[in-house]
Amino acid sequence: MRGAVIHAPGDVRIETLDDPKIIRPTDAIIRTAVTCVCGSDLWPYRGLEPVGEAHPMGHEYVGFVEEVGSEVTAVRPGQFVIGSFATSDNTCANCRNGFPSNCLNREFMSTCQADYVRIPNAQGTLVATDGIPAEELWPSLLAVSDVMGTGWWAAEAAEVRPGSTVVVVGDGAVGLCAVIAAKELGAERVIAMSRHESRQNLALRFGATDIVTERGDDGVRRIRDLTDGIGADAVLECVGTAEAMRQALHSARPGGNVGFVGVPHDVAVDGQELFFSYVGLRGGPAPVRRYLPDLIDRVVSGRINPGEVFDLTLPLGQVAEGYLAMDERRAIKTLLKP
Amino acid sequence: MRGAVIHAPGDVRIETLDDPKIIRPTDAIIRTAVTCVCGSDLWPYRGLEPVGEAHPMGHEYVGFVEEVGSEVTAVRPGQFVIGSFATSDNTCANCRNGFPSNCLNREFMSTCQADYVRIPNAQGTLVATDGIPAEELWPSLLAVSDVMGTGWWAAEAAEVRPGSTVVVVGDGAVGLCAVIAAKELGAERVIAMSRHESRQNLALRFGATDIVTERGDDGVRRIRDLTDGIGADAVLECVGTAEAMRQALHSARPGGNVGFVGVPHDVAVDGQELFFSYVGLRGGPAPVRRYLPDLIDRVVSGRINPGEVFDLTLPLGQVAEGYLAMDERRAIKTLLKP
Repeated sequence: MRGAVIHAPGDVRIETLDDPKIIRPTDAIIRTAVTCVCGSDLWPYRGLEPVGEAHPMGHEYVGFVEEVGSEVTAVRPGQFVIGSFATSDNTCANCRNGFPSNCLNREFMSTCQADYVRIPNAQGTLVATDGIPAEELWPSLLAVSDVMGTGWWAAEAAEVRPGSTVVVVGDGAVGLCAVIAAKELGAERVIAMSRHESRQNLALRFGATDIVTERGDDGVRRIRDLTDGIGADAVLECVGTAEAMRQALHSARPGGNVGFVGVPHDVAVDGQELFFSYVGLRGGPAPVRRYLPDLIDRVVSGRINPGEVFDLTLPLGQVAEGYLAMDERRAIKTLLKP
Repeated sequence: MRGAVIHAPGDVRIETLDDPKIIRPTDAIIRTAVTCVCGSDLWPYRGLEPVGEAHPMGHEYVGFVEEVGSEVTAVRPGQFVIGSFATSDNTCANCRNGFPSNCLNREFMSTCQADYVRIPNAQGTLVATDGIPAEELWPSLLAVSDVMGTGWWAAEAAEVRPGSTVVVVGDGAVGLCAVIAAKELGAERVIAMSRHESRQNLALRFGATDIVTERGDDGVRRIRDLTDGIGADAVLECVGTAEAMRQALHSARPGGNVGFVGVPHDVAVDGQELFFSYVGLRGGPAPVRRYLPDLIDRVVSGRINPGEVFDLTLPLGQVAEGYLAMDERRAIKTLLKP
C-alpha cells in the first residue's frame, strides 16, 4: 500500500509500505476513505519538533472496516467508521470519567496518511455510521475525528454557555471548528481573531459575530473594548505558541476560562500572574471519542459542516504538496483521497 | 488607637496610630471585635516578600459599625459586620459576574490588626449579622472573612461535587477550611496531606477521611494508590509554593481540577506538561463577598465551626508573639483580641 513518510523537515514522501495486519485481537484494519494533514503535522515538518527516524504520518481518518480482531464486536467489515486520533478502550477509569484521550491503554494514531490503517483498541475507538454516508459528508466526518472534536473540547474546556461571549485565538482548522462549537453551545457573541480574509469569511459563515485583526497587546485592547472593558467569558486558544497563550489569558475576564487545545510549545504560565488574572485554564488532547456520536449526528443531520475547513483536496500521492500548501498558508487544511 | 506595624522581617510592633476617619462617602469605620494573623502575613514577616516602608498589617476583621459615610445605607452604626479582605462595590461587571475580589473599585484591606478600621466600599463589602452574634461565634465569623471563604473557593475552583474524591495540599488554616468546604460540598473522600498531628486531628474533625503524611513524589504515589491509580477528581492547593503546585498537579486525575488559593511564589507551570496532564487549573483571590451570606448562615446555624483553626488567642498588644508562634509553627492561626 501507499503511505506518507517524513524523512526530515520539509521532506514528506509517498512510499510503498507493508499492508497493516491485525497484531492483537483488539485491532481492526480499515481502508481509508479520506484522510488529511493536521496543523500539528507541521511542527516536525517545520523543524520545530525533532523528526528523528523516518516514520509514517497522519492521525485523522474515516474509512471502511476491512478486518477485525477476534475481540472486536462493536464494528464489522464493510461498515463506515470514524475514530479519534487517540485510541481508547472505553472501559478504563479515565474513559469512564469521560477522558478517553487519556485512556490507560491509549495509543496515538500516527500512520493514517495511507491506503490502509491498523486501529488499536478498535472496540472502544471506532464508531460506525448508520449505513454508508454520502461522499459529500466524508470531509465533515473526517473533521470530526480530530479538528472538530478538538474545537468542541476548546469550547467545553473554556465553559462556553448559552449567552457567553467567546474569543477564538487561532484561525486554523481547529480555531474555525471552535467557532462552530461555540455557536452550537449557545454563545451569543463569537469573536474570531484572524488577519486572513478567506479564514475570516469562513469564521463568519461558521457563526462568528466579530472579527479582530489586531494581535498581541493591540488585540487584547480590542477584545477589552468589545467586552465591557473586562474581557471575554471564554477564550479558546487554538494555536499552542507562547504568544497565543499570552493573548488568550489576557483576553479572558476575571472568573472566565481559557480552553487551550494547541499542543503548547515553549509555553510557561506564571503562577502569580494566573492567580491575579483569576482565569481558569484547562486543556489537553481532546476527548474526541466521547463527542463522536453527537458530532456525527450533527454532521449527518446537516447542522454543522466542519468539512468546509478543507480548502485543498489532493490525491494521496500528492501528500508532499499538501504539506507545503499548509506550510505556506496557501491552504487551511488539505484533504487527501486515496 | 493601637495597630500592628511591620518594620522589617521578623519585626512587627504594636503602635499608637491615628484613629481612622471617613475619607469617602462610601467608607465605614468599624470597631474591631476580633482580628487575626494570616498565613500570607508571614511572607513579608519571613522576608520572602519585600517589606518596604514600615506599614500597618492585617486584612481579616469582624466588628461593630461605628460610623458610615453618607452613601452607605446597607449597614448602620451598632451592627455586627463581616467583610472580605478585598473590598468591592457589588455593582461593577466583575462583581455582577460573581468575582467581587476583582471588583473594578477593589481595595485590599491592610490595616485590620488594630482597634479601628476604615472599610472602603462599605456598601458592597460589609454584611451585617442578624443581631449581635454570641461571642463564641466570633472566631468562626472572622474565619469566614478570609480563610473559610478561601477554602470554599479552593473547593469551588476545583469543582468539588457530591461524591468527589478530594485532595487538600496544605494543612494551614486555609487547607483545614478547605477540608470543611469539600465536606460541605458533598465530597465522599477528603484526603488531607499533613505531617503534623494536631493539624491531622483537626482535619479529621473537619471531615477528612484519609491522612497522607508523605510529600513530593512519595506523596503523589500515595495519592495514586488511594485513587484507582489515576489521581483525585479535585485537588485544593492551599500553600502557594512551587513544590505544593507540583504536588497538586500530579495528584489530580486527567480531567480533574486543581483549585489554587495560596498566592503563588516562584511558581511557573509548563504549558506542555499541563496539557498532557489534562488537569484544569483555576485560582485567584477568593470571591469571599459572594460567599458571605451562605457561610455566615452555616456558622450561625452551627453547621460549620471554622473558628477551630485559631489555636492561639492573644490580646492585640501581643501581636508580635502571634506572628512568631505562627512562624515557628507553634500555632496554626493566631486570634487577636483588641
